[in-house]
Amino acid sequence: MSTALLTDRYELTMLDAAVREGLADRPAVYEAFSRRLPPGRRFGVLAGQGRLGSLLADVVPGPEELEALRDVVSPETLAWLAADRPAPEVLAYPEGETYAPGSPVLTVATTFGQGLLLETLVLSVLNHDSAVASAAARMVLAAGHRPLLEMGSRRTHEQSAVAAARAAYVAGFSATSNLEAGRRHGVPTVGTSAHAFTLAHATEAEAFAAQVEAQGVGTTLLVDTYDTEQGIRTAVEVAGPDLGAVRLDSGDLHEEVHRARALLDSLGNTRTRIVVTSDLDEHAIAGLAHTQADSYGAGTSVVTGSGAPTAGFVYKLVAIERDGAMVPVAKRSSGKRSLGGRKTAFRTYDDAGRVTGELLLQGGEVPPDGARPLQQPLPPVEDLAAARARCAASLAELPDSARLLEPGTAAWTARLTTEEPS
Amino acid sequence: MSTALLTDRYELTMLDAAVREGLADRPAVYEAFSRRLPPGRRFGVLAGQGRLGSLLADVVPGPEELEALRDVVSPETLAWLAADRPAPEVLAYPEGETYAPGSPVLTVATTFGQGLLLETLVLSVLNHDSAVASAAARMVLAAGHRPLLEMGSRRTHEQSAVAAARAAYVAGFSATSNLEAGRRHGVPTVGTSAHAFTLAHATEAEAFAAQVEAQGVGTTLLVDTYDTEQGIRTAVEVAGPDLGAVRLDSGDLHEEVHRARALLDSLGNTRTRIVVTSDLDEHAIAGLAHTQADSYGAGTSVVTGSGAPTAGFVYKLVAIERDGAMVPVAKRSSGKRSLGGRKTAFRTYDDAGRVTGELLLQGGEVPPDGARPLQQPLPPVEDLAAARARCAASLAELPDSARLLEPGTAAWTARLTTEEPS
Repeated sequence: MSTALLTDRYELTMLDAAVREGLADRPAVYEAFSRRLPPGRRFGVLAGQGRLGSLLADVVPGPEELEALRDVVSPETLAWLAADRPAPEVLAYPEGETYAPGSPVLTVATTFGQGLLLETLVLSVLNHDSAVASAAARMVLAAGHRPLLEMGSRRTHEQSAVAAARAAYVAGFSATSNLEAGRRHGVPTVGTSAHAFTLAHATEAEAFAAQVEAQGVGTTLLVDTYDTEQGIRTAVEVAGPDLGAVRLDSGDLHEEVHRARALLDSLGNTRTRIVVTSDLDEHAIAGLAHTQADSYGAGTSVVTGSGAPTAGFVYKLVAIERDGAMVPVAKRSSGKRSLGGRKTAFRTYDDAGRVTGELLLQGGEVPPDGARPLQQPLPPVEDLAAARARCAASLAELPDSARLLEPGTAAWTARLTTEEPS
Repeated sequence: MSTALLTDRYELTMLDAAVREGLADRPAVYEAFSRRLPPGRRFGVLAGQGRLGSLLADVVPGPEELEALRDVVSPETLAWLAADRPAPEVLAYPEGETYAPGSPVLTVATTFGQGLLLETLVLSVLNHDSAVASAAARMVLAAGHRPLLEMGSRRTHEQSAVAAARAAYVAGFSATSNLEAGRRHGVPTVGTSAHAFTLAHATEAEAFAAQVEAQGVGTTLLVDTYDTEQGIRTAVEVAGPDLGAVRLDSGDLHEEVHRARALLDSLGNTRTRIVVTSDLDEHAIAGLAHTQADSYGAGTSVVTGSGAPTAGFVYKLVAIERDGAMVPVAKRSSGKRSLGGRKTAFRTYDDAGRVTGELLLQGGEVPPDGARPLQQPLPPVEDLAAARARCAASLAELPDSARLLEPGTAAWTARLTTEEPS
């Protein structure tokens, strides 16, 4: 299905004017970057590239899209849109990579007209998926080695939910509740039961027995429908010493985890795990670090970017051919400066292998020894395992200043070799 | 295409247990409601029902979905899923209606098993679309009679963008930049040009001339790429006295609008309008009320719910048949109480026609004279014009306390006739 209409009308009206004046086929370079991170954030995690490859491949309008565009552009521009053209060259940071203000996370080398048609879709995908991955990465750091489950599908648009499950997995979550994310992207899925299941039975014991009958004693029983202490006792009576886990979804979680662990141990269920859910964000997860919680479920805050539901990427024309040469261009109005010209990005490291910064080269400059190149061709198909591994490696090389959850400033900023640190 | 997998895995594992024990076909009632509004909000606007009708009609799994569910449920449950069943009875508040904490905005009268399969999808759609509509409605109130344009597609998931454009239109926005929202839902679309278009030309004058050539002098010229004052002078020189509008997208907007109006008037362009964009939210829009801005574009804040990206609806089993009679059920654990039993909702009014509250009836009680019933069958197809009219009418009947933008508490709460106001 064509993705041609998943765009802003002005991309088409600009194209229309450009076709009329012969500008549409002029070579041009666009870059996506963020001017700043969301307030308080110290780094970002880029995600969405694995979805973007096929979405961009489908951006060519089909007959139905051309019909819909009849009222938007001239017949000449419809003909331009219907013609075959080479696909734009798209470079991007690998999926799962960290980024900083100024990082040129995606570069499109194409023509002025074709570049316009990618803008909105590139930004929609990167802004959404990276907002989720960036929040998820903070939760992953806060959770340490404890597994995190994504269960926020119901808090966001039904298709965003699928992409959010995928982005959280890239950032290090272990699994999702979303079945479509399992089918479409291969994300592991999990799920056992909700309060409705307990409420549908005359007693909690009946509900637990039915669940154990269907799912085995290794299942997770939700114990807080009526009274948590009684719920745990009933769970152990019904499932026995091999009960897999109990889930706590309400109350003062810090207190509830301590009580649940003590009670389970006193009943002999020392191997029964404790899953904690209930609107957890990175701060709540960090607050549970010294409890005996075994794993966490996060919903609303991960799918809505934990206070930053969009990553703030913009997509700007940075160079265009004029009189046979590529010329850097940039907006100059107040508060929204951009840096003209195509950039090549390298991450720099200290002797311990921690990130020290990010260099942007524009000419024939040679990157310093040990600097890591960040841009590569956008893969046409997704490799979710590679993205997840990339994210884990990039989180491991973050400087300590980036790992703090407290509000702060960006741990580094991507800058030209000629710029002074600000 | 089936929407059966746009759901949480636990809905299916609960169904599986219920099928095995013969509970799946037991008559049951579920309700969607919010326990509280997002922090500081005084009312909400419900949206998404027009999308939900067809999404719920497609929730029956097809062969591919049944194949994908083979690892999730037993063969017996697969057979249950493949069998024909009457569609659930779904009642909802009309799209565009306002709501309060406790409003039973959607009611599903069905069986225990079928009700499970709707939960995640119902919540995804209502939580997303209502978050956008609720934020949009505050912007509409702040803008007064000035038109609002939705242009946030690039700040949210590519499919959320389409739904967000639709929800903002329901709430009273005049148009969207999103072309797919135009095709799929009939929302009016607008768009002229961006900074890239100016940057692609050797001079601003060349860019403006090309745009006027393609779109006519009635177009909107973006005047802040280099220097706004010079941009306005150039726009007037190129387009003449009938230039439609100038767009301001940066700087101190309050100041910029004053300067632009004075300059346009001094140049004789008294009819040229001023469109203000640049990350506007309801507070920024209210702050521009006393300027001579003519219309506003809102992006990030409308599509992300202006600080509240999800509406907070939950979906709960409220009654189930037991021993031949429907029995109310509700969770009792701390902090997340629900109200058992199926509810019928009526809005009440003062003599001036302003909302005073919302009554929930559970038995054979008679609603007070003049109370308006809020629930109706979920329409199978959308009627966007009706939703937009419903929202305008419901916003007009809000009490003054609900119309304030300052953080406050819910203007009313839906409550049982037997409950005391809290």
